[in-house]
Amino acid sequence: MQNFEYYNRTKIIFGKGTEDQVGSETAQYAKRILLHHSGGSAVRSGLLDKIKASLKKAGVEWVELDGVKPNPRLSKVHEGVALCKKEKLEFILAVGGGSVIDSAKAIAIGALYDGDVWDFYDRKKTATQALPVATVLTIPAAGSESSVSSVITNEQGSLKQSVNEECIRPVFSILNPELTYSLPNYQTACGVADMLAHIMERYFTKEPHVELTDELCEGAMRAIIRSARRIFSGGEKDYNARAEIMWAGSLAHNNLLSTGRIADWASHAIGHELSALFDLAHGASLSIVFPAWITYNIKENTPRLARFAAKVWGVDGAFYDYEQAALEGVFRLKNFFHSIGLPVSFADAKLDTGRIPEMAKRAVKFGPIGNYRKLGEKDIEGIYRLAAE
Amino acid sequence: MQNFEYYNRTKIIFGKGTEDQVGSETAQYAKRILLHHSGGSAVRSGLLDKIKASLKKAGVEWVELDGVKPNPRLSKVHEGVALCKKEKLEFILAVGGGSVIDSAKAIAIGALYDGDVWDFYDRKKTATQALPVATVLTIPAAGSESSVSSVITNEQGSLKQSVNEECIRPVFSILNPELTYSLPNYQTACGVADMLAHIMERYFTKEPHVELTDELCEGAMRAIIRSARRIFSGGEKDYNARAEIMWAGSLAHNNLLSTGRIADWASHAIGHELSALFDLAHGASLSIVFPAWITYNIKENTPRLARFAAKVWGVDGAFYDYEQAALEGVFRLKNFFHSIGLPVSFADAKLDTGRIPEMAKRAVKFGPIGNYRKLGEKDIEGIYRLAAE
Repeated sequence: MQNFEYYNRTKIIFGKGTEDQVGSETAQYAKRILLHHSGGSAVRSGLLDKIKASLKKAGVEWVELDGVKPNPRLSKVHEGVALCKKEKLEFILAVGGGSVIDSAKAIAIGALYDGDVWDFYDRKKTATQALPVATVLTIPAAGSESSVSSVITNEQGSLKQSVNEECIRPVFSILNPELTYSLPNYQTACGVADMLAHIMERYFTKEPHVELTDELCEGAMRAIIRSARRIFSGGEKDYNARAEIMWAGSLAHNNLLSTGRIADWASHAIGHELSALFDLAHGASLSIVFPAWITYNIKENTPRLARFAAKVWGVDGAFYDYEQAALEGVFRLKNFFHSIGLPVSFADAKLDTGRIPEMAKRAVKFGPIGNYRKLGEKDIEGIYRLAAE
Repeated sequence: MQNFEYYNRTKIIFGKGTEDQVGSETAQYAKRILLHHSGGSAVRSGLLDKIKASLKKAGVEWVELDGVKPNPRLSKVHEGVALCKKEKLEFILAVGGGSVIDSAKAIAIGALYDGDVWDFYDRKKTATQALPVATVLTIPAAGSESSVSSVITNEQGSLKQSVNEECIRPVFSILNPELTYSLPNYQTACGVADMLAHIMERYFTKEPHVELTDELCEGAMRAIIRSARRIFSGGEKDYNARAEIMWAGSLAHNNLLSTGRIADWASHAIGHELSALFDLAHGASLSIVFPAWITYNIKENTPRLARFAAKVWGVDGAFYDYEQAALEGVFRLKNFFHSIGLPVSFADAKLDTGRIPEMAKRAVKFGPIGNYRKLGEKDIEGIYRLAAE
């Protein structure tokens, strides 16, 4: 087991009706805030009105910035930074999913910085301070509600890059599973793929002595898969299935599941190129890339890949050889993604395979990627090719 | 799933050599501290000298208070409170196991209170403020290193009572598994029973919709059992087995595993009476009480007891009836406790069964106990009787 530090100060407020607490919680931090959202479903559903009523009751003033898009854009972040500076805002409340939250985190860094906030995403600077951020989550997926991560797309050059620093971890996050009843199926499915991928990135490690976190990862993945099946079998308003998915999405990415081990993260980087170039949903990029990543690595620490098949997908580990078992696991993973309406190939998502060499080159911009196995440009091209159809 | 709040701000610093960070971490909070320990193994092993060197290097001054005993005593707490007030100490560093940490937490409350700190344990007052507490853990067991709990024994009347408040959660805890190599087997075993019991108290719930936390609980229990077997099969210095146990002990009691569910806690209360009266180690009280508690409740929500047998102990759930499966689980639980040298009956621990009525009466001092099933005096007497031999 590797040495580690584990620290997560996000206060999770989970359950029915909890959005009514947003005013009193926010008031403990600030009286003038940026209220950041997409302008879409949170407005239509009346959630935003409830939040404003709660803020008003607690004596909190807000300035509103909407219009955040999936794969959140740097231009919107710039707008938010300017607004925070001009209006002297002290706190950012994100109402939405991972895109809104990641945008809020970027604004929080930029509000306390004189240069262009992209410097932090482009690794020219390290973020050490930010305005406090909090969230009311409406899409369980990214885990951004209790994570240190923010991923932003720079439209100039289709670059998708991340910051991962303690200073942007939300101070509180409100999670009401009822708010997810009305999500389009495709968004729910993308969220499920994203949280499974967050656990798989951690699960596929070469550190052999991580029995406890192996167990926790496997259990969380099984719970996600079973709950997703309930939702996609007519359970759109099954509170408990929605609740399992919502809480699992946070745990998947709050680093508990990587304690003592070295996570991989190559598949996320490989998927980011698909999203940046084709504006593909993050979850859909992962459902395409991850099965191909496992297949490409089938000779690499095969017992671990076979364990994934056995413990998560119920493949009988006793009588297969490891490689066969692992490949059966990949088959079941793809089947599961398909069953919830996600693409598992370039062909499924109608993506142009002609851009593969260009994406492989971009993916290694900062050098080889991945820790389970270091991947260079040729490897990544190989993974894209395996995902072609 | 029940609504919940989850918040755990303890920073965990885990791994080899991490005790060397104690000075720099402490210096972020205070320059004059109480250094609290038992005066036993931490002195003999040289750990305390290392800690003092680290404190000194970071410019932190300390006043020392040793002599904490298992089932930590109120009289020692009073001593610590007086010392903190007299010396104007700002912070308490506990070096040891759950007893030292619980004692430190009690002192931390008392240092900011004018009356007798027992008022908080006797439920006359609610603790809302305390000096910051931090720990260097040497015995994985109580989970006190990241919990809000403190249990203190009032020698006058053999009363053992608890405080559970956010203000006493440690600000950081240092966990180096190497420090546990030299633990006597009995202490390791008691720790294993304690952490298993912390999970079982949470696992035995009547809330049916807690799939994710069920999976996490079951996985953690399996990891603990397997790792304990390795330690007790000549693996006293197996770093990884010690590390699994140490991290599991914290997770078992930091409330992650009770999110969304209502935990029971009757067995702890029933065990506390054994410890208070016979000065029995906490873990040994639990290895006696818990199997009897399950057996006494065998007709109560039997499928949950059978699931415990199937998922944790590998009992074949498919062909037994639930009650048979559950009883086989109890048998394997007792066998496991026996295999690591723990008592599972009054007879094993040579306890006087004549005191049973008196203990049953005390256990319900504040009213019926338990949430899985409310237990009155007669029920508790029944459980003690089942545990007699």
